[in-house]
Amino acid sequence: MAKKMKAAIFVEPNRIVLDEKPIPEIGPLDALIRITTTTICGTDIHILKGEYPVARGLTIGHEPVGIIEKLGASVQGFKEGQRVIAGAITPSGHSAACLCGCSSQDGPGTKHGFKGMGGWRFGNTIDGAQAEYLLVPDAMVNLAPVPEGLTDEQVLMCPDIMSTGFSGAESGNVRIGDSVAVFAQGPIGLCATAGARLLGATTIIAVDKVAPRMTISRKMGADHVVDFSTVDPVEEIMRLTDGRGVDVAIEALGRQQTFEWALRVLRPGGALSSLGVYSADLKIPLDAFLAGLGDHTIRTTLCPGGKERMRRLMDVVASNRIDARALVTHRFKLDDIEKAYDLFANQRDGVLKVAITP
Amino acid sequence: MAKKMKAAIFVEPNRIVLDEKPIPEIGPLDALIRITTTTICGTDIHILKGEYPVARGLTIGHEPVGIIEKLGASVQGFKEGQRVIAGAITPSGHSAACLCGCSSQDGPGTKHGFKGMGGWRFGNTIDGAQAEYLLVPDAMVNLAPVPEGLTDEQVLMCPDIMSTGFSGAESGNVRIGDSVAVFAQGPIGLCATAGARLLGATTIIAVDKVAPRMTISRKMGADHVVDFSTVDPVEEIMRLTDGRGVDVAIEALGRQQTFEWALRVLRPGGALSSLGVYSADLKIPLDAFLAGLGDHTIRTTLCPGGKERMRRLMDVVASNRIDARALVTHRFKLDDIEKAYDLFANQRDGVLKVAITP
Amino acid sequence: MAKKMKAAIFVEPNRIVLDEKPIPEIGPLDALIRITTTTICGTDIHILKGEYPVARGLTIGHEPVGIIEKLGASVQGFKEGQRVIAGAITPSGHSAACLCGCSSQDGPGTKHGFKGMGGWRFGNTIDGAQAEYLLVPDAMVNLAPVPEGLTDEQVLMCPDIMSTGFSGAESGNVRIGDSVAVFAQGPIGLCATAGARLLGATTIIAVDKVAPRMTISRKMGADHVVDFSTVDPVEEIMRLTDGRGVDVAIEALGRQQTFEWALRVLRPGGALSSLGVYSADLKIPLDAFLAGLGDHTIRTTLCPGGKERMRRLMDVVASNRIDARALVTHRFKLDDIEKAYDLFANQRDGVLKVAITP
Amino acid sequence: MAKKMKAAIFVEPNRIVLDEKPIPEIGPLDALIRITTTTICGTDIHILKGEYPVARGLTIGHEPVGIIEKLGASVQGFKEGQRVIAGAITPSGHSAACLCGCSSQDGPGTKHGFKGMGGWRFGNTIDGAQAEYLLVPDAMVNLAPVPEGLTDEQVLMCPDIMSTGFSGAESGNVRIGDSVAVFAQGPIGLCATAGARLLGATTIIAVDKVAPRMTISRKMGADHVVDFSTVDPVEEIMRLTDGRGVDVAIEALGRQQTFEWALRVLRPGGALSSLGVYSADLKIPLDAFLAGLGDHTIRTTLCPGGKERMRRLMDVVASNRIDARALVTHRFKLDDIEKAYDLFANQRDGVLKVAITP
Repeated sequence: MAKKMKAAIFVEPNRIVLDEKPIPEIGPLDALIRITTTTICGTDIHILKGEYPVARGLTIGHEPVGIIEKLGASVQGFKEGQRVIAGAITPSGHSAACLCGCSSQDGPGTKHGFKGMGGWRFGNTIDGAQAEYLLVPDAMVNLAPVPEGLTDEQVLMCPDIMSTGFSGAESGNVRIGDSVAVFAQGPIGLCATAGARLLGATTIIAVDKVAPRMTISRKMGADHVVDFSTVDPVEEIMRLTDGRGVDVAIEALGRQQTFEWALRVLRPGGALSSLGVYSADLKIPLDAFLAGLGDHTIRTTLCPGGKERMRRLMDVVASNRIDARALVTHRFKLDDIEKAYDLFANQRDGVLKVAITP
Repeated sequence: MAKKMKAAIFVEPNRIVLDEKPIPEIGPLDALIRITTTTICGTDIHILKGEYPVARGLTIGHEPVGIIEKLGASVQGFKEGQRVIAGAITPSGHSAACLCGCSSQDGPGTKHGFKGMGGWRFGNTIDGAQAEYLLVPDAMVNLAPVPEGLTDEQVLMCPDIMSTGFSGAESGNVRIGDSVAVFAQGPIGLCATAGARLLGATTIIAVDKVAPRMTISRKMGADHVVDFSTVDPVEEIMRLTDGRGVDVAIEALGRQQTFEWALRVLRPGGALSSLGVYSADLKIPLDAFLAGLGDHTIRTTLCPGGKERMRRLMDVVASNRIDARALVTHRFKLDDIEKAYDLFANQRDGVLKVAITP
Repeated sequence: MAKKMKAAIFVEPNRIVLDEKPIPEIGPLDALIRITTTTICGTDIHILKGEYPVARGLTIGHEPVGIIEKLGASVQGFKEGQRVIAGAITPSGHSAACLCGCSSQDGPGTKHGFKGMGGWRFGNTIDGAQAEYLLVPDAMVNLAPVPEGLTDEQVLMCPDIMSTGFSGAESGNVRIGDSVAVFAQGPIGLCATAGARLLGATTIIAVDKVAPRMTISRKMGADHVVDFSTVDPVEEIMRLTDGRGVDVAIEALGRQQTFEWALRVLRPGGALSSLGVYSADLKIPLDAFLAGLGDHTIRTTLCPGGKERMRRLMDVVASNRIDARALVTHRFKLDDIEKAYDLFANQRDGVLKVAITP
Repeated sequence: MAKKMKAAIFVEPNRIVLDEKPIPEIGPLDALIRITTTTICGTDIHILKGEYPVARGLTIGHEPVGIIEKLGASVQGFKEGQRVIAGAITPSGHSAACLCGCSSQDGPGTKHGFKGMGGWRFGNTIDGAQAEYLLVPDAMVNLAPVPEGLTDEQVLMCPDIMSTGFSGAESGNVRIGDSVAVFAQGPIGLCATAGARLLGATTIIAVDKVAPRMTISRKMGADHVVDFSTVDPVEEIMRLTDGRGVDVAIEALGRQQTFEWALRVLRPGGALSSLGVYSADLKIPLDAFLAGLGDHTIRTTLCPGGKERMRRLMDVVASNRIDARALVTHRFKLDDIEKAYDLFANQRDGVLKVAITP
């Protein structure tokens, strides 16, 4: 009879509970990871609230740090006992999407009427990381050894938050000397700010209204922090850029308001890099879009995954380019994950990210 | 007293008339061109109808073929009597926009509340090409000699139609083996079809409903032509691409419907290249946008200008890669331009483009 | 006891013979292909002559067309009996090289003191395609179904010749209106010429001295063919480009002379795309290199592989963008492969490529 | 009679002297700048030694900081009395090179048998900056106002040293998480190190042997400094990268040795970005080049110029991303420029850059 493990399971809208499940059996290309640290993502809250549908009984979570417990028969290049992470997105390595440089969109499958996003599997189409054990598919593509000397909390932001946040700056093609505005300074937005700094932007303007986030913004690299509750952010950003507008605007929330602000502060020829998960149709105002004549680029990016991406992000941490621990504000045992969900879902106590340890 | 010339002048909405104006005086960086052939653009019809506002008394038109009549004192590298064209967009060469690779957006100026498009001057902010003479600003940047052996009609599509149409494929980053859908097969859309072919797309799907345009589509390089009046174009394109969707979708009309179709047939990771001039806010449907998780790119492009672009486009014609004359369906004397406007504005008699000769 | 098959085996320098070998046993990620058509590559001649060392007893060949005989236990998405090709380069899909967009360089392994090229396995580090059966590693990454209606000979150039040749134009970033010179018009060079045409070059200059190749050059898209045995190709190309030089120069032979010509005809800011396999140190002449101040790019490309690349190339054939059969000049049974090597190695009878059928 | 000014003039090999010259007369597109600070470049030493030929009587120097004394009649957008810099390279804005994104190679002219580099005019083809006054051609393209609050010495590295050095990282396409080796840590190499840091490299390895330069290397962003006089730099870099080699290698000296080291430490698929000015033919060793099969890119870059580039670089300084003053080790009056040349040419007293003030 299969051994059991604890896991945070989606039961129904507004109910994610800690329960028991069998420890997964792995196939030849898989690995079994014993989770040592994981966390909760804003997307998990969408799942909790029923805004993003997943199967009942699914284990939630897509941000694993752990130790290889067992390797599938065909997996080479790793050994049991190694400390590893895996990205939130786990490409197969063999899909057409992977082979044309778009590995996050791996797989042709449709889900909820959507035709893409096949690369997001953990806590979406297969069991996720908020558990004692995690099955990692296509292990040779997805397992990334943690360099010696880095703690779990130091690499906990790599699977999703840093990968997504940095991609905001990368997809916007931030260059040396660029001005960049980042709308919303949650964990993803803060990492987008850090990403803009990493890529050489010289005028980085972060927009939020929550005081502690605005403080961390500056640590992450913002040159200016705009509180949209006290000033009009469009006017303020145009002022800060001498009327030029920004070269790159990053949307990190998923709302019409932030999307529209981003478009309005964008210079002709600039790029709007969108990271947010939207929950309604978007409107592109004619004037902000220059009637389609502004040489504008709007690009959305889903968290890049795979072991090479993870290796690079852990290098960013190891080389002290970013202090990713600054984003971990609270710690819980897995046994208390329901409390962690309660705190995180209600954004109490200045929470940014929680560390969950089985 | 200044000598006079004939010119097509915007008097008020729904009235463009042929009248007399002084032949322009040129400054040190300008050139005066004696127009030998020009044409009417869809944008001119927006101006005619009052949908795009310009100053009363302005000469309309931005597609010149002619002969250098006079060169400004500081202009070097050209000589009077040379046959030349100039792009619809006339960058200055010295703006920040020019120097960061976005010369169409030259100039910081705002116009009608829009902050960009400073590069479009002919028939927009200065007198245009539907006249006997045309002042070309920043002549050293904008005059492009016509290679020997090419007729006026062969190069007439270069200043705007080919430059814009091809840019649809270029901005979509069409690559060898791509599938491309082009929505609307007016002159711009037909050149977008040709551009996709020039860049190595192997499945080119053109969408329209006007029979003669659909016929020319195939000549321009379409592998499939979809008549949206008889089939659902989204379903048909998904069928033609075995359910994968297209790598690049080109919007060449400027309407919500075509924009939305373009987004719906786009594969995850694909690019929507938008050429149309919109006249209302756009909606991005949540499902077609994969909630912002589809690694989609939406890019708008304003007609690239400058003499090097024009040289390359005339090379495309000279090397027989495209038969640009196929788009000229009607011919008028400048004296009859009001009739030409009437025909073109009402899209009678299968008109695609008209050639106007002073 | 294992069943036997016929295979062309490297015995020692200047001896490749047809002999018997066991039909390969496949692992869980492999596929076994029954070869229906294959061919001999210039690289195989380097192996034959002992210029490129491989293990004695190795089966040669890296250009397979065939039918799936058997699939490994973990292989999904294919079925036995399917007609397929596989690229000359067979990436694993899970290496760091694959995951950073450089799948041809898959694998960290060193070979003959070289640190890269791990993606080239067939007829190099594992048994190749000149045999009755072929083991395809990482089958889910590498098997590409042949579209209905295409013959073996129509797709025979896809695994290497078209993939490499086109990459010459792609790596040079050929754009609409470019001038491109292609040095040497063997099969690879001819496909580089075709690739330049596919990508929109308008002045394509092919250089060779063999008359039949020069004839096919024009069919493949060359606008000008320069016979270097009768004129100085550098002078001639500068003349043909009005003294500007070419935007892209493609080297398709692997010799100092062609490399140097390519550099000398390159405009400042242009790209030299190198496809040749060199057998000696190269010299970069100071003057041709503008002392390192010419904004030049020199880029080498190893044949891109993987099933998505193969799908796209077969689409190029299926859509009649290229007539790849024009390159197949001779046909042999596998039983007569030694005669085929003799003909091909000595470049007799105007041979371009041979088709070998078991 | 024309007023006179002092200027550092090339008389003959090994003689640059301070002498008198007429203050330049400006044309309609020019500006006259009163120099407040300038400096000597390594290239000037090549000129001094007769290794790079210029006309006798030419004023040397291409790194100007100054005040607009007079504007040409056609120059708009600036005013007399403004503090400005101009790039070492002064593109015209209207050449084909400028219009296809390669403005450093402006102009078709040949010089000393070289066909490019037309963009480098100061101290090369027209009088340069080591003088009391400087004529800036195409002033609207090239004058860049100095932001308030920045001193002359803070912006003195922008015209050449920062622009060239950063371009080493930019042309190598350095990305987040890259490993980068920079060969030679003179002023350009130090700025290449800083550029790699600005673009997100996480393992930056600087190679030199001069102790004070190695100290500044770390301030500029190097993670590791390799002294090639005590260890084999190729072995050491392979060790520091766990045998992978670097993603980008930057050559910043112009010698066979550094070029070859750069190639040998480059991973397959990596980029060698070359900044050095070479004075002899280069050799590409066959093994380091992987016989042309390594998917390598070798790219040379000439200092990018123009006012927008200068604006961005001054923003880098203003935003405290780099402390450019650290490179200024010595200061001289223009009257003592011959002493400055003597110190700089002989690399005495740990000199990096000198500031010269008229």
